[in-house]
Amino acid sequence: MAKAADIYFRVDPWKIIEEGFDPGYSRVSESIFSLANESMGVRGSFDEGGSVDSLRGVYVNGVYDIQPLGRSYRGIIDRTHFMIPAADWLRTEITLDGEKLDLGSVRFRDFHRELDMRAGTLTRSFVWQTASGKELRLTFLRFVDMNHRERAWQRVIFEPLNFSGKVEFAAGLSFDVRHEGYGKCFWQDARAEGFTLQARTTLSEQEVFAGAALNIGGETRFADQTVSHHAALSLEKGKALTADKRVVILFDGSAGEELWQKGLQALADSEQTAFDTALAQQKAYWDAYWRTSDVEIEADGDPYEQQGIRFCSFQLAQIYNGGSMRHNIGAKGLTGEAYNGHAFWDTEACCLPFYLFTNPRAARDLLLYRYNTLPQAMERARMLDCRGACYPLATLNGEEACSLWQHASLQLQPSTAVAYGIWHYAHVTGDQDFLYDYGAEMLLQIARFLASRVEKGGKSGLYGFYGVMGPDEFHMMVNNNAYTNYMGMRTLECAAATLDGLRQARPAAYAGLLEKTKLSEAEIAAWREIAEHMYIPRDETGLIEQHDGYFDLPHTDINAIPVTDFPLYDHWSYDRIYRSDMIKQPDVLMLLYLYNTSFTEAEKRVNYEFYEPRTIHESSLSPAIHSILAAELGKMDEAQRFFGFATRLDLDNYNRNTREGLHVTSIAMAWANIVYGFAGLRSDGDGLRFAPRLPQRWNRLTFSIVYRGRVIKVRMEKDRTAFRLKGEPLEIMIYGKMYRLGNEEVTVES
Amino acid sequence: MAKAADIYFRVDPWKIIEEGFDPGYSRVSESIFSLANESMGVRGSFDEGGSVDSLRGVYVNGVYDIQPLGRSYRGIIDRTHFMIPAADWLRTEITLDGEKLDLGSVRFRDFHRELDMRAGTLTRSFVWQTASGKELRLTFLRFVDMNHRERAWQRVIFEPLNFSGKVEFAAGLSFDVRHEGYGKCFWQDARAEGFTLQARTTLSEQEVFAGAALNIGGETRFADQTVSHHAALSLEKGKALTADKRVVILFDGSAGEELWQKGLQALADSEQTAFDTALAQQKAYWDAYWRTSDVEIEADGDPYEQQGIRFCSFQLAQIYNGGSMRHNIGAKGLTGEAYNGHAFWDTEACCLPFYLFTNPRAARDLLLYRYNTLPQAMERARMLDCRGACYPLATLNGEEACSLWQHASLQLQPSTAVAYGIWHYAHVTGDQDFLYDYGAEMLLQIARFLASRVEKGGKSGLYGFYGVMGPDEFHMMVNNNAYTNYMGMRTLECAAATLDGLRQARPAAYAGLLEKTKLSEAEIAAWREIAEHMYIPRDETGLIEQHDGYFDLPHTDINAIPVTDFPLYDHWSYDRIYRSDMIKQPDVLMLLYLYNTSFTEAEKRVNYEFYEPRTIHESSLSPAIHSILAAELGKMDEAQRFFGFATRLDLDNYNRNTREGLHVTSIAMAWANIVYGFAGLRSDGDGLRFAPRLPQRWNRLTFSIVYRGRVIKVRMEKDRTAFRLKGEPLEIMIYGKMYRLGNEEVTVES
Repeated sequence: MAKAADIYFRVDPWKIIEEGFDPGYSRVSESIFSLANESMGVRGSFDEGGSVDSLRGVYVNGVYDIQPLGRSYRGIIDRTHFMIPAADWLRTEITLDGEKLDLGSVRFRDFHRELDMRAGTLTRSFVWQTASGKELRLTFLRFVDMNHRERAWQRVIFEPLNFSGKVEFAAGLSFDVRHEGYGKCFWQDARAEGFTLQARTTLSEQEVFAGAALNIGGETRFADQTVSHHAALSLEKGKALTADKRVVILFDGSAGEELWQKGLQALADSEQTAFDTALAQQKAYWDAYWRTSDVEIEADGDPYEQQGIRFCSFQLAQIYNGGSMRHNIGAKGLTGEAYNGHAFWDTEACCLPFYLFTNPRAARDLLLYRYNTLPQAMERARMLDCRGACYPLATLNGEEACSLWQHASLQLQPSTAVAYGIWHYAHVTGDQDFLYDYGAEMLLQIARFLASRVEKGGKSGLYGFYGVMGPDEFHMMVNNNAYTNYMGMRTLECAAATLDGLRQARPAAYAGLLEKTKLSEAEIAAWREIAEHMYIPRDETGLIEQHDGYFDLPHTDINAIPVTDFPLYDHWSYDRIYRSDMIKQPDVLMLLYLYNTSFTEAEKRVNYEFYEPRTIHESSLSPAIHSILAAELGKMDEAQRFFGFATRLDLDNYNRNTREGLHVTSIAMAWANIVYGFAGLRSDGDGLRFAPRLPQRWNRLTFSIVYRGRVIKVRMEKDRTAFRLKGEPLEIMIYGKMYRLGNEEVTVES
Repeated sequence: MAKAADIYFRVDPWKIIEEGFDPGYSRVSESIFSLANESMGVRGSFDEGGSVDSLRGVYVNGVYDIQPLGRSYRGIIDRTHFMIPAADWLRTEITLDGEKLDLGSVRFRDFHRELDMRAGTLTRSFVWQTASGKELRLTFLRFVDMNHRERAWQRVIFEPLNFSGKVEFAAGLSFDVRHEGYGKCFWQDARAEGFTLQARTTLSEQEVFAGAALNIGGETRFADQTVSHHAALSLEKGKALTADKRVVILFDGSAGEELWQKGLQALADSEQTAFDTALAQQKAYWDAYWRTSDVEIEADGDPYEQQGIRFCSFQLAQIYNGGSMRHNIGAKGLTGEAYNGHAFWDTEACCLPFYLFTNPRAARDLLLYRYNTLPQAMERARMLDCRGACYPLATLNGEEACSLWQHASLQLQPSTAVAYGIWHYAHVTGDQDFLYDYGAEMLLQIARFLASRVEKGGKSGLYGFYGVMGPDEFHMMVNNNAYTNYMGMRTLECAAATLDGLRQARPAAYAGLLEKTKLSEAEIAAWREIAEHMYIPRDETGLIEQHDGYFDLPHTDINAIPVTDFPLYDHWSYDRIYRSDMIKQPDVLMLLYLYNTSFTEAEKRVNYEFYEPRTIHESSLSPAIHSILAAELGKMDEAQRFFGFATRLDLDNYNRNTREGLHVTSIAMAWANIVYGFAGLRSDGDGLRFAPRLPQRWNRLTFSIVYRGRVIKVRMEKDRTAFRLKGEPLEIMIYGKMYRLGNEEVTVES
């Protein structure tokens, strides 16, 4: 572990607090103070903007534009798409005695910013000390509405401490927003009327409506794709004046007059709700969330991990909670432009378990997103001279958007992860309808892709995948990556077995699917043949070689890398990261996590002990996987250390790139870390298995999961764990022994 | 050998002849009919342009522009440069009865085009049959002046066959020339006066002067960066009318008024020479060339190979003959925009021997080009987190211009080839001054680069290069590529030995160099240590594994690839070419060619027999290397088959990409093919060695080489070879036995 925490925010069980403003940390803070409600998201940027270092990110889920890339080699994409900032509803200008508020240049004191995870609000306050000697306390409050996903709210409170007089105030709504990486605005043809606005993206031709209303008088102007409401506010010494702004942002695939009318209606609907009512309802939403979904950690000392896991839980609930098959989970959610808003295979490999055990309907919706984009995946396979469906590494709309061919063309992980997700979902929920109506077709096309991509090796004569990049992205163009081969084998087996099941259960549907996909039984037999003869390199101790030749690579002492070298992509010559045994993120270990019950404890131990010291965790996936395996192997100190890392990856800026946005995947993996790691849940074998192992310095850990219509509440204490069930009786395995959960709480000594 | 000849041109010992015009073959013909004089070059495009498929390439050596690429990862270039078309001096418009001459749309007969390699001219003639029933024979003649490198000449002959009357004629000079790939013109701010013109490139800010004069009256106009001379010619039935154009193109690094005045002067100077005089002098130049440099092949049947080798010889003499250290040898010379006019390591690895044994001064100039660009190579090493000098894969100005990081960052070939070139040059010529004044410093910086790039492997504990791409570009990011390791070893040894030699021969210069480069003796010792412990993977039979894991790769039957799949880069998904044992070009075999006398015949045989059937020759380097080794191993049929391929690679469009320009490297290798292959010259051991092996169906092969002030003429016949020497006596080895060449011809039975 060469990485260290960079502790900046105050530790608090329910809040993230910044006291005093560090301009050098500004972008990290912006990421941490992000708010979202799945439909829209906003970074914690200052309302008034100014000259502080900032990525002014105001996003609408699913809004993107397109960039042509020019033609290069076959199979390399010639255009990409990327999330763009949308209507900026926070734009604010405040001027006092001709001095414009800009925390990059004015004097101020008592800066305080806090994210309240119980209220779902972000508040910022400070005292502005003007050159003319006036002191004005300003408080900014904002939230995005969890109850009405098209609404957002902003409040500014003015408290003159030592004067009475006028302050100039302008509240804006703007499509004049620049994508930082491209350095340009992708919005055009803005239509404005009063405090409403509608605009269209350039090449994707999406339209977004934005409207607002203020509780103060003034005058509205339109220029540069921006409407702004100007007022001169009369302040009285010692008295607070409050400016409230109610905002509607609408994006539903419609356009033109239809969208405009819908937007006006939504704005009119929002008038029924007063600001304070909306604020109370927001709190009520989050109260309800925490009542059912809180993970409580009782430990001695600072609530460091409690804050960490709550921050993760809060962000995850903000970013996706199901209900729209148009949404997936971006690597950075709606918290920054790095990774272009794209969803990766992290969705199935890392996020899905959270939804499987808290909100299975949302898990199904995530998989239906993949079904809806099956045509794009099939087109992608054709581009790569293959058959079937190759799911994209990075996407918003189902097309491959990763412009780095070495990732887009060499990683088979997205396809095998979708297959794993389908299997895992059906295995845990028992949802045969989904499996046969949608899953079978996806599995079939993925299997077909893999069978067209696999090759017979030279010496072994076995099958394997050549020229790939496994989950460990620090090794490129490798052969027989164990993860890829194993996942390929299981996917082929699963596809064949699912089609078998379909044939028996629904012969007509089976025949229809074969007809639709022109699949022959011989093709299915070929998949089985490949799966049976897949090369999985492991030695007599069970140690799996990550890929051909991995053991012969030069060794890098990862502890000798200075922390200032991170992220390595920014500080090392690109080709340099590929030349040693340093691993970016779990590869063999990822396999042991996903198909955990298919490997013996001895196999897990030998591989963990070999690979862990070689892993640099330059991916947010990494620490939680390690923590889960460490816990299983009884390495509780390590498990706890990796857990801290996982839950606080962004809060403590471990990877030194939180400035670009939050690592949303680590948020989901932090939950998995607790449920799979410390509670020892295993969901890839028969039924559910638990093996609770409370970390030494914790006193109690409490959480719930849902399972096939039931709720299982788990309360882990020092010497015992209690399981309480709501719903039909259920047999589960605890520490390798079967228990029947019924009406009574079951307590097992640890 | 999955490739086949596509024979289109008439076989003739001295000419390339096209009878009848095939529009589908237009670009191939344009490439074949290229003319150049090192300073400028022009493809065989139709003077009148028109709607036929064409790459209108008119180039000036060293003229390029720059394209910013945007920042990506460290070590990946953020701008590139590329050859652009310059002043088009051939622009011609002919209109008869309102019908504009355009061979893409008008009727014509008796099309004949020929490149005369004895005269250095390109002639084209045909009879234009207008819609109005007129028949006009047109003959176009052009040449670029070998005696005055800034001059070019164009002649148009009009012969009305069945009418008398007017024809409209316009002769132009234009900087309105588009780079095809970028689809734009890179010239700006043209200044015009009469029939002269000067313009500047956009970002590289180079300036070129162009001026012309015609032998007919008319009117000159300037528009769109183009001057054109318009005339209405009165033709008389049965009589020929000749329009001659004398052109000066000047590019010497100067700009503005200075260049303008020099240009005017050069144009005035050219007035002294009449068109027919220049034509006669051109013929005289080529007569002289062929007298000293012709390679004569006497064989039964068609002069198929004679034409091939003469075409190579002619093109090579056009493209580089020394005298300017600003010029190197572009992969396509001045015959097309593919490869952007860039020079590669082919210069040292493939072209240098031709110059070493025909024009050693030119060889020295090529190496001085590398010395002059040492600062750029050192900057490049720094970009890659290394020390010393890393020579660019592709360049015009010394900076890395290859925008494919996988080639630019992973190929160490350019650096080791420069080192090899320095060593080979000094070894053959004995030029110690060059070695100590320039070579030592380059060797030092290259060795330093390699020592900072090499790593100690995992299991073997030996040194090797990881994450590289060897000469075989179909395998990327491999470890312990045998070629790279071996070349690295020899380079380190050579650098250390050269510095040793310098210390003994010139202690002060040695001390100065150490001071200048901050080199310690410990660093030199470290190079020796690395070289002594370099990993060269070979088995007990001497078979060298191309790189770690190569023997385990899936097999591709290269004979099963349809010829329509070539070039593979255009027809296969990019990642697909990297997944098997298919080899693009010699890799292990390249090593056996360069350090030929360091390997036993048994080693060469086992490696040749293993690698040859796996090589697809998707590089123009490939066939000649194979031919040379085949000849050495007594596989004369194969040697001859590969020779045909090498000399006629472009004439018969073997790689199906001659349309993009000529493979200039194959031109040099075709010469090497004869001298190293059939005459069995070896220059990497002590002294010179020959082992003549005349191909079965040849009767005689004659050529000369120069060596340390001497000329050795070699005449190979069926049963014997005669060596005749001009100059000081010399001992050479023939068939493994020493002979002393003196005044008398030495004849050795074969």
